Amino acid sequence: MKRWDLVISGFGTVGKQVARLLTERKERYRQRYDADVRLVAVMRSKAGCYDPEGVSSELLQAFSEENCMGDMTFTGIDFLKGSTYDVLIETGPSDLETGGAALSYMKTALAAKRHVIAVSKGALVVDYSTLSALAREHGVFLKVSGATAAALPTVDLLQYNLAGSDVTYMEGIFTGTANYVLGAMMEEGNTMETAIARAQQMGIAEPDPRFDLEGWDTASKLTIIANAAFEAKLGLSDVKREGIMTITQEQIAKWKAESLVPKLVGSLRKEGEVLKAAVELRLLESDHPFARVLGTTKAVRVETDTMGELLVVGGKSDPVAAASAALKDFEHVLQQTR
Amino acid sequence: MKRWDLVISGFGTVGKQVARLLTERKERYRQRYDADVRLVAVMRSKAGCYDPEGVSSELLQAFSEENCMGDMTFTGIDFLKGSTYDVLIETGPSDLETGGAALSYMKTALAAKRHVIAVSKGALVVDYSTLSALAREHGVFLKVSGATAAALPTVDLLQYNLAGSDVTYMEGIFTGTANYVLGAMMEEGNTMETAIARAQQMGIAEPDPRFDLEGWDTASKLTIIANAAFEAKLGLSDVKREGIMTITQEQIAKWKAESLVPKLVGSLRKEGEVLKAAVELRLLESDHPFARVLGTTKAVRVETDTMGELLVVGGKSDPVAAASAALKDFEHVLQQTR
Repeated sequence: MKRWDLVISGFGTVGKQVARLLTERKERYRQRYDADVRLVAVMRSKAGCYDPEGVSSELLQAFSEENCMGDMTFTGIDFLKGSTYDVLIETGPSDLETGGAALSYMKTALAAKRHVIAVSKGALVVDYSTLSALAREHGVFLKVSGATAAALPTVDLLQYNLAGSDVTYMEGIFTGTANYVLGAMMEEGNTMETAIARAQQMGIAEPDPRFDLEGWDTASKLTIIANAAFEAKLGLSDVKREGIMTITQEQIAKWKAESLVPKLVGSLRKEGEVLKAAVELRLLESDHPFARVLGTTKAVRVETDTMGELLVVGGKSDPVAAASAALKDFEHVLQQTR
Repeated sequence: MKRWDLVISGFGTVGKQVARLLTERKERYRQRYDADVRLVAVMRSKAGCYDPEGVSSELLQAFSEENCMGDMTFTGIDFLKGSTYDVLIETGPSDLETGGAALSYMKTALAAKRHVIAVSKGALVVDYSTLSALAREHGVFLKVSGATAAALPTVDLLQYNLAGSDVTYMEGIFTGTANYVLGAMMEEGNTMETAIARAQQMGIAEPDPRFDLEGWDTASKLTIIANAAFEAKLGLSDVKREGIMTITQEQIAKWKAESLVPKLVGSLRKEGEVLKAAVELRLLESDHPFARVLGTTKAVRVETDTMGELLVVGGKSDPVAAASAALKDFEHVLQQTR
């Protein structure tokens, strides 16, 4: 049985769920892939805990309470440079300006021939081309499901379900929080402020909601999908971007009267050799397939040359689903390295 | 560059499209997978043509006009026993009673360590367990997308997009022809006879429409999905089956008055260790996601433990899409044997 030693960087809500699911699925990996999968380290930028035979649940608990044990404390990047492991699962905060610590973690891991599974978006948005070149050069995988709508398949859909077909157009509702806010205004008559406050109470909106509501989240996902699945070389600034924060109740009333449904839609369109990316507020007719995508639900629709159209709706937006998407990527690594 | 020699058995509408797409995608395989892919033989039960360096388009044309050239005529099974090739793509007629010639082709190929990509359903329905055991024993792939709703991902969805998640329930509109007939009665007021005749004129219904309309097609697909993706051991007779051929215009009028939408739905439900399979006429409320799946469009919906629900709608029903699904499977073989 092959040993697979995993490291999680970032240990917030998603990282903790990854750790939990890894324990739950230990027997599955053993049976299906003949793989002895162990979580050997979890780390933040200034602390971590490590056990080469697999960190115990007690140690994880202590670490998650910021009560880390003496000699098991270390800094992330030194750990990654000095240790052996097979896969890095990066779940830390996203820095869309510089890529942050995640970018250096991922580069370090790939250069050391470790597979990388990204949940955080920043590093991928900032420097996908260097990361993917490192993965290619060192013969390892760079997987991005957790960073591209998680439980809703996007890169998978293009690279696997439609392998061989030419996808000429893709559009989607990629940001559950924005969709929730629009729905709360349309369906329940909330003001923008109330809708945002409710989303924050539910834990689906950040204290600063602009990342989701001004289209940055959707634009980030489009950038990663464009680079990973369309082999484009797009930066975040190449994405035409529009937000929804200035929508008024008067606009909502007018759209309702006209039976139009506002949705924040991200799209990628091939025009010859160019890939056009945009995040726009669209006013959809009520029979558009996205019009009935409600709450935090996401959706994606693609048009292809030989396989017609595909619409996918769903993919839960919560830490368990995000962790589950990262571990789907891990199983793809197991499937493709047998 | 690795040579990949392919054989197509059955050379009807789908087999011809597979041959055409293989030629179109030759350069793609070279660039993406460093693979020199050649179609070295096409065959029917009593004739075939073969060129170890790749059959020319002229030879294919002659063969497809049943005007096969002298010494390139041979029988399928003898050819498969005596030749070298890497992948068999089986596109012949489906025999749900015995598996027909396709079953012996597929067993012969798998036992000789060749990958098999099935488009026809019969052999899979009759003896999936032997076929998959042969594939496992000889370390090759048995792929079934073309036989399980083709361009609509089903087995893919379970094994790849949801890898690691537990799927507790799956339901789908898996038979485009049945959906078309129901729609023609509901939307356009056709009688069953007229709706069937129109489907036949469009080339989407067989001269004997019972396979599609009495639920056999859906039941066959469910049987294969259950065995391939749920690791069940279901036979066709384990699927509870209902058809739509006895629906009257009076029933249609009543359902319309009640805003109900009739759909032929196939489902798989886990109940403890048991997998329950059924094909049923369901009367759906108009806001059910399947209610708006019209024409020959197909759909599938799954419920999972950690990734929420996913609904997929689309997947064209024509020979190009079926061929494209088979070649998607071929790319998965290329991806997983690198």
